[in-house]
Amino acid sequence: MNKGKQLYEGKAKRIYATDQEDVVWIEYKNSATAFNGEKKAEIEGKGRLNNLITGLLFQKLAEKGIESHFVEQISENEQLVKHVTIIPLEVVVRNIAAGSVAKRLGLEEGTPFKEPIVEFYYKNDELGDPLLTEDHVKILDIATPEELQLLKKEALRVNDVLVPLFSEIDIELIDFKIELGKDKNGHILLADEISPDTCRLWEKGTNRKLDKDLFRRDLGGLTEAYTEIYKRLGGTI
Amino acid sequence: MNKGKQLYEGKAKRIYATDQEDVVWIEYKNSATAFNGEKKAEIEGKGRLNNLITGLLFQKLAEKGIESHFVEQISENEQLVKHVTIIPLEVVVRNIAAGSVAKRLGLEEGTPFKEPIVEFYYKNDELGDPLLTEDHVKILDIATPEELQLLKKEALRVNDVLVPLFSEIDIELIDFKIELGKDKNGHILLADEISPDTCRLWEKGTNRKLDKDLFRRDLGGLTEAYTEIYKRLGGTI
Ligand SMILES: Nc1ncnc2c1ncn2[C@@H]1O[C@H](COP(=O)(O)OP(=O)(O)OP(=O)(O)O)[C@@H](O)[C@H]1O
Ligand SMILES: Nc1ncnc2c1ncn2[C@@H]1O[C@H](COP(=O)(O)OP(=O)(O)OP(=O)(O)O)[C@@H](O)[C@H]1O
Ligand SMILES: [Mg+2]
Ligand SMILES: [Mg+2]
Repeated sequence: MNKGKQLYEGKAKRIYATDQEDVVWIEYKNSATAFNGEKKAEIEGKGRLNNLITGLLFQKLAEKGIESHFVEQISENEQLVKHVTIIPLEVVVRNIAAGSVAKRLGLEEGTPFKEPIVEFYYKNDELGDPLLTEDHVKILDIATPEELQLLKKEALRVNDVLVPLFSEIDIELIDFKIELGKDKNGHILLADEISPDTCRLWEKGTNRKLDKDLFRRDLGGLTEAYTEIYKRLGGTI
Repeated sequence: MNKGKQLYEGKAKRIYATDQEDVVWIEYKNSATAFNGEKKAEIEGKGRLNNLITGLLFQKLAEKGIESHFVEQISENEQLVKHVTIIPLEVVVRNIAAGSVAKRLGLEEGTPFKEPIVEFYYKNDELGDPLLTEDHVKILDIATPEELQLLKKEALRVNDVLVPLFSEIDIELIDFKIELGKDKNGHILLADEISPDTCRLWEKGTNRKLDKDLFRRDLGGLTEAYTEIYKRLGGTI
């Protein structure tokens, strides 16, 4: 497989074409950004760790019957994935209140929800990725109500696999964000990444944060934390 | 009926007990507030107009089979209503994009929706009345999913009566907010007020605003506009 021309550069990854029309080449960058790009830094090793962790998690999800865009790891910071048209929604699953939802609802961080909740945010940097209701999604023509139910179900299935997977390695999955896309046949597929950049992961017992909040809140030790996650998941450095 | 002790003072109204346990006395104030109370003013005649308009609209809704807390007008700025326990949600129906939703979704003000949408905001001044998803309402235990569907249906029924009612007097109902509460039997009832303070009303043809946006946006002429609404609705000054 050859790396073709760059199709897109995001805040965390670069996407390249390949020889195969339906496969793209993703290169994970070391850039860390938060608060809609307002806060920025380069963190050595981050791209590699997110690439490796995402690859591992997509493989573990596949073993449990959850398909994703993941094709194969091609280097420490690159992977091949199926090309999809991303649905412009960030689908967030929350098990425990933290971050924006804790603030919005006036809940203390760490308060567990009776059952996982799903939220949709509009992938739109200009608008600051606003929270959407299901009616908003419908009137923006982003997804039909049926598709939305499918996205929600898929997000909860991913949660049902990831919660015990992290629990086994003594980590609590507080919340996570996924993106989904449609392949050329219109089939909806889990895409983008699942990494400590897109999850909140708290060590059980200590509640030590092992995720991007280390960067958002200037707590330091991000590379060490992401390495810890990768190792506990069975990854070899 | 006698006015008893004051039970509550809000930004726009004062609530008093009466001789009858299930009836309260509402006094409409001249205070105008916006942006969660940050902007304030006293506007002569506003309380009276909102009281009269709300009374008229609740009567017109009753004629169309939509029950509310309204009992009777007792003076120009006072009305008797059934006492309810307010469900802490502002239920918003929107026919045309304006205000916060236009900003949130990046739509031009005045863009019609294909069909009316319903939004729920958490009545919580401390949190700034945040937009809620249906999952948020559920986990906050504000309403059951069944009650939420009932609130939504009721809000759309109110819209179905108000849109043609305003249309007949050459006014476009852009959006409005209602509050609902439970009476002592747990029966859900339309409550609070429906007035130019809680609706967006644009004159057809000219798009002249005849609502609280005149205050929010420092456009002036609020008393004249509210008087115009009251007169067009058939009210006598
Ligand atoms: N399989 C895929 N096919 C096509 N695009 C994808 C695929 N997986 C992820 N993407 C997209 O690649 C882009 C680059 O990812 P990155 O995380 O850097 O973007 P971002 O800066 O976070 O957000 P934005 O989506 O606003 O660019 C994203 O738009 C993401 O949605
Ligand atoms: N029938 C009713 N029984 C009991 N309370 C009511 C009834 N109708 C309205 N209310 C409540 O009366 C209060 C006073 O109204 P007002 O509009 O002044 O309040 P506000 O300042 O807008 O908001 P807040 O609800 O935060 O006080 C509101 O809390 C409203 O929900
Ligand atoms: Mg991204
Ligand atoms: Mg009010």
